[in-house]
Amino acid sequence: MRLSTFYAPTLKEDPADAEVVSHKLLLRAGMIRKLTAGVYTYLPLGLRAVNNVANVVRQEMNRAGALEVLMPAVQPGDLWKESGRWNVYGKELLRFIDRHDRECCLGPTHEEVVTDLVRHEIRSYRQLPLNLYQIQTKFRDEIRPRFGLMRGREFIMKDAYSFDKDDAGADTSYFAMYDAYARIFSRLGLRFRAVEADSGPIGGSFSHEFMVLAATGEDTIVACSACEYGANLEKAEAVCHMAEESTFCPPAEVVATPGVHTVEEVAAFLGVAADRIIKTLLYVADGKVVAALVRGDREVNEIKLKNVLGATEMELASPEVVTKVTGAPVGFAGPVGLAVDVVYADKELFGRSDWIVGANAADAHLRHVDLARDATVECSLDLRQVAAGDMCPKCGKPLLFTKGIEVGHVFKLGTKYSTTMGAMFLDEEGKERPLIMGCYGIGVSRVVAACLEQNNDEHGIVFPPPMAPFEVALLNLSPKDETAVAKATELHDLLAGMGVEVLLDDRDERPGVKFKDADLMGFPMQLVLGGKGLGRGVVETKDRRTGEKGELPLESFAEAFAAFRQGVLDGWENRG
Amino acid sequence: MRLSTFYAPTLKEDPADAEVVSHKLLLRAGMIRKLTAGVYTYLPLGLRAVNNVANVVRQEMNRAGALEVLMPAVQPGDLWKESGRWNVYGKELLRFIDRHDRECCLGPTHEEVVTDLVRHEIRSYRQLPLNLYQIQTKFRDEIRPRFGLMRGREFIMKDAYSFDKDDAGADTSYFAMYDAYARIFSRLGLRFRAVEADSGPIGGSFSHEFMVLAATGEDTIVACSACEYGANLEKAEAVCHMAEESTFCPPAEVVATPGVHTVEEVAAFLGVAADRIIKTLLYVADGKVVAALVRGDREVNEIKLKNVLGATEMELASPEVVTKVTGAPVGFAGPVGLAVDVVYADKELFGRSDWIVGANAADAHLRHVDLARDATVECSLDLRQVAAGDMCPKCGKPLLFTKGIEVGHVFKLGTKYSTTMGAMFLDEEGKERPLIMGCYGIGVSRVVAACLEQNNDEHGIVFPPPMAPFEVALLNLSPKDETAVAKATELHDLLAGMGVEVLLDDRDERPGVKFKDADLMGFPMQLVLGGKGLGRGVVETKDRRTGEKGELPLESFAEAFAAFRQGVLDGWENRG
Repeated sequence: MRLSTFYAPTLKEDPADAEVVSHKLLLRAGMIRKLTAGVYTYLPLGLRAVNNVANVVRQEMNRAGALEVLMPAVQPGDLWKESGRWNVYGKELLRFIDRHDRECCLGPTHEEVVTDLVRHEIRSYRQLPLNLYQIQTKFRDEIRPRFGLMRGREFIMKDAYSFDKDDAGADTSYFAMYDAYARIFSRLGLRFRAVEADSGPIGGSFSHEFMVLAATGEDTIVACSACEYGANLEKAEAVCHMAEESTFCPPAEVVATPGVHTVEEVAAFLGVAADRIIKTLLYVADGKVVAALVRGDREVNEIKLKNVLGATEMELASPEVVTKVTGAPVGFAGPVGLAVDVVYADKELFGRSDWIVGANAADAHLRHVDLARDATVECSLDLRQVAAGDMCPKCGKPLLFTKGIEVGHVFKLGTKYSTTMGAMFLDEEGKERPLIMGCYGIGVSRVVAACLEQNNDEHGIVFPPPMAPFEVALLNLSPKDETAVAKATELHDLLAGMGVEVLLDDRDERPGVKFKDADLMGFPMQLVLGGKGLGRGVVETKDRRTGEKGELPLESFAEAFAAFRQGVLDGWENRG
Repeated sequence: MRLSTFYAPTLKEDPADAEVVSHKLLLRAGMIRKLTAGVYTYLPLGLRAVNNVANVVRQEMNRAGALEVLMPAVQPGDLWKESGRWNVYGKELLRFIDRHDRECCLGPTHEEVVTDLVRHEIRSYRQLPLNLYQIQTKFRDEIRPRFGLMRGREFIMKDAYSFDKDDAGADTSYFAMYDAYARIFSRLGLRFRAVEADSGPIGGSFSHEFMVLAATGEDTIVACSACEYGANLEKAEAVCHMAEESTFCPPAEVVATPGVHTVEEVAAFLGVAADRIIKTLLYVADGKVVAALVRGDREVNEIKLKNVLGATEMELASPEVVTKVTGAPVGFAGPVGLAVDVVYADKELFGRSDWIVGANAADAHLRHVDLARDATVECSLDLRQVAAGDMCPKCGKPLLFTKGIEVGHVFKLGTKYSTTMGAMFLDEEGKERPLIMGCYGIGVSRVVAACLEQNNDEHGIVFPPPMAPFEVALLNLSPKDETAVAKATELHDLLAGMGVEVLLDDRDERPGVKFKDADLMGFPMQLVLGGKGLGRGVVETKDRRTGEKGELPLESFAEAFAAFRQGVLDGWENRG
C-alpha cells in the first residue's frame, strides 16, 4: 500500500475536544473521525486495527468451539418486555417506533434475541452445550459519551452466549471462554489482568473482568504482589489481619464532642488514632433502614453491602431518616441503642474491643464500647473496601492497587433469561428444565483505544505488532529520485510478497514530515530509504518501541529484514 | 467442522410464511431465522455464505483501489436536512430522537455521511481521486418486507463512494467499479448481466444495474440475442423498425365509435390491427397537462417520459382533467385539437401516416390522420417500452426479455451532494470546485438470496463453490462403527489440512436423513463413507449440481479427491 493513494489524514495538533491520550492519537493518526457525539467513522488505519482485533477474537472463539452468527441490530420491544428489561434498562436503550407503530430498540446487548432464537430450536439435552457468538456494531445511548472509542455510543462488540444443561457444564463453558479471553489479550500483545468482578446479589465467583493495565485507566484493580489473585475494587475480598487484643474493656461512657462530626475530627478531638473509632453509616435498602459499621480508617463497600442484603435499591439515608433513627443530627450515629431495622458490622471490628462510637445524641460520642457487649449486631462479615497493603485473601502477601481499562467480561448468567422467557429443554429423564446460560463480551473497538492508552510515547502510537494496521512503515526520503523510487517499489513488493503488511510513504513531502507521521502512526518497524544510506547500499531501520536504530544491507535484504523483524517481535515478547 | 456440534437446524417442511424459493431454502437449510418482519438472524451456515460474498467483494474493491472504512449506522438528521433528503426520503428512513432530543436516523445509505467526512479532509485536487467503501448492516423500513433476504428491512450492503476532480476522472472511477462488479459476480459463480439503468432526469448512460438471472426475478431485463447490449425495461432504448410507407393519406374524418374505449375495442370495432391506432395518454407533470402518443400495440414508458419532461412529479391525469382538456369522457382522447400544454409523440409514429385516433368527443374517433398534417406535436422521441423481438439499438439483432434480480448498482452522482453540502476542492488553477461523485452498491445479503433463486433443484440448494458455506459434506453413515468413525475423522482432518472447508455429518441419524440434509444444504461435493463402500476401500462421491456419482479409493485419497474436486469446479465453470 502506498501512502500517496491511501487515506490517513494526520493532524499536527491535538484536537481540542480530545481529553484522553487514545482519543487524541486516534484522531491525530487519521484512524477515526467523529460524526456526532460518541459516534465515529473508522478510517482505513482504524478499521485495520479493529479488524486485527476482531480476527484474533474470531480465531480464539472458534478454537473454543463457539459458533459465529449475526443477530439483528434492530430488536422488537416485545422481547425486552418479556425479559423484564424494557422498564429497567433506562435511557441507554435507544427506543423507537417503526412505520407500523411497533416499539423497537437498537440492541445494546443480545440476551433477549439469542434466548428467543434458541428457545425455538433447542428441545433436548442432546443439542447442548451450545455457544453462539457474533461481532457486531452495538448502540448504547450514553448520557455523556466521551474519550473517543473508550466510551462511545456506537461501538463494535463481540458477544457470546452459552447454553448448558447443568451447572457443571455451564462452568466448563465459562472457563473455556475465560481461557479464550486470556489467549486473545495475550496474542494481541497487551499487558492485562483477569480480575474477579461482582456478579450481583446472586453471588458466586462467576464473573471476571479482563483489564488492560494502563496508568490512565478508569478502574481500580486490586492485584496480589505475589500470586495470581486479582479483583476489581468492588469485589476484592478484605482479610482481617489485626492481632487479637486483650478483651478487657471498661464500661462504656459518654464523652462530650461538641461540633465534632467526622472520624478525623473525633480522632483529633479525643487524641486517638482513627482505627479506634467505628464509623456508622446508615442506608435505606428496599425500604428498610440499615446500619453498616466499619473501622474509622476504612470505607464501606456499598456493593458488598447491597449483595449481602440482597437489595434491589440502596442509598445513603437522608438527614431526616438519620435524625429519626438516631435522635441526633448527622455525625453522631452509633450502634448502641440504634433504632434501625438491621445492623451489619465489618468482621474486622470483632478482632478487638474498646471502641469509640457515636452516641446517637447531639455533640456526644461513647467510649469503651464493646460491640458484643453493648450493641446488637445481626451479622459480621466483609463489608469494607480493601486498601493497598491489605493481605491477599489467597496467599496473604500484600495487595497492590493499579489502574485498568475493562475490555472483556465473562459472566455466568444462570437461568435469569431462560426462566423469564421460557427457554426450556428436556433433560436425560425427560424433565423440562431451563437452559443455564453464560454471556461473554469483548469491546472490540474499545480494545484498540485501551491498547493506545497502554502503548504510546511523546511521539505517538507504539502499536504492538499483532494489532498494528501495518507492520512496516517504509519511508522513501527521495520521492523524486528515480533510483530511490525504483528501490522503494522493489522493497515494497518484496515485503508484500513475504506476507508483510507494509505502507510505503511515497508522498512528495519533506523527510521531517515522514518521520513524524511514521512515529505518530506507530507501526512497529520503520525502514528508511534514501540519502546517504542508499548510496552505501543500506536501508536504515528503527524499532518504534525502543527507538533503536540500525541498518540492513540492500544486497541480502530479505534475510536481514527477517532477522530485524524477529528481533523486534522478540523485544515485544520479552518487554517488562 | 462436525455437524453434531454445529448449529444448522434444518426443517423438513416448507415454512408457511415463505413465498419464494430462496426464502424457503434459507429457512429450511438452517441458514437464517426471522426475528421480526424483514429482520433476520444469520445462523452459522448463512453467515458463512454472506462472508464468502463479502470476502470476494472486499478483494475486488481493494484490487480496484478503493479503501475500506466503516461509517456509523446512526446518523444525525441535520446532515440529511443539509442534503435535502430529510423531507423527501419518506418512511423508509427510520427516524428517532436520542436522549438529548436530537433527530437521528438509521442509515439506509451513506452519501451524506461520506460527503461530510471528505469535505473536512479534501482540500486539493492532489488528494484525488478517492474511493471509500464499507461493508455494513443497513436499515430501510420497507412498508412490506418480504421474500426473506430478498427484500428485508435490515440487510448487509457494500457501498462505495468515489470522488474525482473532473468528469473524465469520474468516468474512470465509474468503469473501475463496473469492472470490479463484473469480476465479483463472475468469481461468485453467478450467471448475471450488467444492464443500463435509468439515471433519472440528468440523463447520460452512467447507471448500470447488475442482475442475477433467475426465472423468479422481479425485474424484466432486455438483452440482445447477439451482442452485449442489456438494459432494464425502464431504460431499454426502442428502435423504430417499420418499413417506410407511402405518405399519401386521405383527409381526416370522424367515425362514430359508440361505447368503444380501449385500443382493443376500437381495433375490433373498426376491423383494423392495433398498430394502425394511436394511443393518447394524458399525464399531469409538475402541474402541466401532457399528452403522450404511442402506437396502439405499445406501452408508454413513463420513466422515459418523465425524464424527457425533466419532471419531479408525474401521474396519469384524473378523469376530470381528461374531460376538461378533451371535452369527452375517458377513452376518446386524441392529438387533433387537444387543449393540453405539451404533446409528445413516440418517434415510431412518424414512420407512417393514416392513423386512427380519438376524436376528443364522446363515442367518436378520427381516421386518416396524418400527425404532421393534422396535429401539433412538440417533440417526437423514444417514449415507448421496448417489446420482445424489437431490434437491438447496438447491433440490430432481436432483443430478448428475461428475468433478473438486482444485486448491484453503479451510479454516477455528479455534484448533487457536493454542491448542496459544500464539498469543494481547489483545482490546478486554485479555483474552488465541487467534487464529482459516484456511488456503487452491492446487496451482500441479497446476493446470497439471488444465488439461491438461480441455483436450486427439488432437493434443495445447489451452491456455486465460491459461495458455499462448506465445499464438502462428508457423510459418515455408520456413526456407531469405530472403524468408520476413525476413517471419517481421518478424512475430515486430511481435507481440512488441504484447506478444504468440510462439514462432517457425524450425527447419530439414519442415512436417509443425512442424504436429505446434505442435498438441502447444497454443498458442491458430497463424500459418503460407510456400508459396502468402506468394506471395498472406497468413498462414494456425488456432484451436487449434476447428481453424478462416483467412487474414490481410500488408498490414494488425496490425489483422487483433488481430481474429483477439479472435475466439479470445471463443471461449474463450463455449465450452460
